[in-house]
Amino acid sequence: MIQETVERYRTYLEKLRAYEHAMGLMSYDMSTVMPKGAGPVVGDTFGVLSEAMYDMVTSPETEAMQREILEHRDEVDSAIVRTAELAMEERARIACVPKDEYVQYTIDRTTADQVWHEAKLKSDFQMFLPHLEKLIAAQKRFALYYKPDAPVYDTMLDAYEKGLNTATLDRFFATVRERLVPVIAKIQNQPDVSFLHRHYPIAEQRIFSDYLMDVLGLDRKYCIIGETEHPFTTSFTKYDVRITTHYHEDAVEASMYSVIHEGGHATYERNIGDDIARLPIGGGVSMSVHESQSRFFENIIGRSEPFIEAIFPKMQEIFKEQLKDVTAHEFYVAVNKAEPSLIRTEADELTYSLHVMVRYELEKRLFNGDLAAKDLPKEWNRMYKEYLGIDVPDDRRGVLQDSHWATGLFGYFPSYAVGSAYGAQLIKRMERDLDVWTFVRKGDLRPIVAWLTEHIYRFGCRKEPGKLMEEAFGAPFDPTYYTDYLTKKYSELYCLD
Amino acid sequence: MIQETVERYRTYLEKLRAYEHAMGLMSYDMSTVMPKGAGPVVGDTFGVLSEAMYDMVTSPETEAMQREILEHRDEVDSAIVRTAELAMEERARIACVPKDEYVQYTIDRTTADQVWHEAKLKSDFQMFLPHLEKLIAAQKRFALYYKPDAPVYDTMLDAYEKGLNTATLDRFFATVRERLVPVIAKIQNQPDVSFLHRHYPIAEQRIFSDYLMDVLGLDRKYCIIGETEHPFTTSFTKYDVRITTHYHEDAVEASMYSVIHEGGHATYERNIGDDIARLPIGGGVSMSVHESQSRFFENIIGRSEPFIEAIFPKMQEIFKEQLKDVTAHEFYVAVNKAEPSLIRTEADELTYSLHVMVRYELEKRLFNGDLAAKDLPKEWNRMYKEYLGIDVPDDRRGVLQDSHWATGLFGYFPSYAVGSAYGAQLIKRMERDLDVWTFVRKGDLRPIVAWLTEHIYRFGCRKEPGKLMEEAFGAPFDPTYYTDYLTKKYSELYCLD
Repeated sequence: MIQETVERYRTYLEKLRAYEHAMGLMSYDMSTVMPKGAGPVVGDTFGVLSEAMYDMVTSPETEAMQREILEHRDEVDSAIVRTAELAMEERARIACVPKDEYVQYTIDRTTADQVWHEAKLKSDFQMFLPHLEKLIAAQKRFALYYKPDAPVYDTMLDAYEKGLNTATLDRFFATVRERLVPVIAKIQNQPDVSFLHRHYPIAEQRIFSDYLMDVLGLDRKYCIIGETEHPFTTSFTKYDVRITTHYHEDAVEASMYSVIHEGGHATYERNIGDDIARLPIGGGVSMSVHESQSRFFENIIGRSEPFIEAIFPKMQEIFKEQLKDVTAHEFYVAVNKAEPSLIRTEADELTYSLHVMVRYELEKRLFNGDLAAKDLPKEWNRMYKEYLGIDVPDDRRGVLQDSHWATGLFGYFPSYAVGSAYGAQLIKRMERDLDVWTFVRKGDLRPIVAWLTEHIYRFGCRKEPGKLMEEAFGAPFDPTYYTDYLTKKYSELYCLD
Repeated sequence: MIQETVERYRTYLEKLRAYEHAMGLMSYDMSTVMPKGAGPVVGDTFGVLSEAMYDMVTSPETEAMQREILEHRDEVDSAIVRTAELAMEERARIACVPKDEYVQYTIDRTTADQVWHEAKLKSDFQMFLPHLEKLIAAQKRFALYYKPDAPVYDTMLDAYEKGLNTATLDRFFATVRERLVPVIAKIQNQPDVSFLHRHYPIAEQRIFSDYLMDVLGLDRKYCIIGETEHPFTTSFTKYDVRITTHYHEDAVEASMYSVIHEGGHATYERNIGDDIARLPIGGGVSMSVHESQSRFFENIIGRSEPFIEAIFPKMQEIFKEQLKDVTAHEFYVAVNKAEPSLIRTEADELTYSLHVMVRYELEKRLFNGDLAAKDLPKEWNRMYKEYLGIDVPDDRRGVLQDSHWATGLFGYFPSYAVGSAYGAQLIKRMERDLDVWTFVRKGDLRPIVAWLTEHIYRFGCRKEPGKLMEEAFGAPFDPTYYTDYLTKKYSELYCLD
């Protein structure tokens, strides 16, 4: 009977969730408080648990349950059908990898991540290189096991955003480059941003973070904020969402926009439908859609003048001395200063996509072309000079700056740029339904979150990401919304012709 | 071949370690940062993982491996033999419990712990009662499954300290009561302790904690310090040891002695032999022996005058204003103030065992006698009046004060008192080998840690706890070392006749 199979499948899914929970928590712990000396032990624990997960996901029993559910799809809850559908795809991706390679990769990734932290600190790419090469080789093998005839990088991109490929991204980045490089070139007179770099004690910044969490509507009963060098968001169901930030006492905007960015990710997770909360489909659907939300809140809302107007009185209350001679408008201008720079995560909204483009081009050549990992620093520096016009002084601020490659996240970066572009098209659509800026000016983001929940969040992974966004837009994806938005915003800010 | 079995057994043990690591980390997370709303999800994850562990530990294959190893004990590494020996005992304890009861208990314990936190906050025993009753009933059942004919509480005591039973403890507490109550009764003039309650900012106390960690020789690469309401220590192998403390800005000694106490636990774990570090026997051997180390460092060393003399200059450097008019001797006297009080964890060294005795008597009656859980508050308050002469104003400061019962730790409390007594006998033995107080006066605890490592730490669980301590003492355990030590110390401090 199909209902009996569905029950068995639900039990299996709950078991799978528990293992993902345990492994996710270990990653979180590793990034937050774990003593560094525990590395080898935690790597082995990952090995054991990932082997157990591999066995579960690839077992013939699991496959049989999923096939049966898909054959009886009309009689089964749609959330379970969708879960089985996606699981069969995931299964195909994993089952073609020999188990020992899969387990070894999990362990290698843990090691690489730890070595990267140290290598970055020492600006020592050579130290990281053998670990990076190992991960690249494994990912290439895995992609070819899965689709022996497809270009490797396309297979990898597809894993983060179903349907995304180099053809689409080449067009996307060409548009971005073509439209934004001229705008960047026109920028001349820079605003005064010195007040951002006054002394902002961490204790006061923590109070400010709490306030921002409230503005975003993030209930602390289900969403905590912690501190790590590299801010991130993780969640173990929508009932346990965690963001982190990093405080710089001489740069108030750094943590401010980390909190809003990660808070955007958290808002997505927190508003997944309760009906699918514990299922594998009860999370963000893709990296691009996830980044579209974090960057939407960070930039389109968070770096808008109405938003700054809304929160500035509270900021002046918290940072009494530091902001007493600053106006909301001056603050708005300062946090939108655009200028080619070294570090992606600190880049302004306008030049941001060029940082991503460098990474995209490098990854494409690493996996589809002939770029060797050992040549990454040289090529990285060359492209930063070419696209952003700046010299990279060392690998710490160059090729070693991001954690992604150290944890095997190749093919992830493009989602930051695509996500940013999604956001620009979303706000246009939202403005037709909602008096967005009146609410923002009051500091009331609830109607915006409600709109996004209605059109995006509640679905989790029920729809393919491309389709989900098209339906939310009410039109096909069009990156010129993004380039138009940035051109208009920065033309006004910098009084460009 | 036996060596092939040993290899398979090692693989199995490594798998078991991984699950224990994952579950331990989840407990740690729950006690530190987990958002409260995540409770039900984390409970279910515990359920899944504990079921997997139950299956591993009780499987016929595991039993067969262990039997084979024990049959060939002369051909096998002694650490593996000892592991198999203890595992067979543990197996007997677990395998007699039906799996569904075992899993449900794990989930219930997670829930009870969460309810207890809230109940304590609200001083609402009724709220906690049904959860407490569930845990007591389960533990009774488990003890009877294992040893149907033994007194339940003896079976439980034995789990924490092999060989310990009510007969021994009744004698132990009789000695304590008989010898110490008269000393307590003689105490009259109390010293000035007001300087302990000046304003000690948390930031400065954190610096002080770092200093204390250094004094204890705890390498931060393998041992971190965090903050929780109730301080505790946990470890996932000796390479990942974690202690926590709680800062009170108006009581500098509170966190100070939490750090030293938990640091004592950590010192034990950190000095387990490397050869057994990843095996199940690579941890403290029993709760009493563990508490003997934490309370040794906290009281016998940490509350000694030579120790205060050693660290006081640094304290005056950190707490410049607060301690400028205080001498080391005054500080020593103040942190040894003895007075019957409400809270066990804040109790002085002299009255401490009476707090434990109350809990011991109640547990004995709960499990061997006719005391019902619902009558705990009444009996608790009556005994505090009888033994300590004080009135308990509410359950928050009474029966709800400790977390132990909420996590199913019945039979654990006596180990605090027995451990304290072990420490007093240990120091006497150590003084014969080592000029202990000369080193302490210099703030150099290394020779002491080395002595304890030689006689206790390195063995992990290789020996039975009773035998381990007897060998360290070079004599049978004798609680009068403890009562003599306290009588002498407090007679001097309070100039008693």
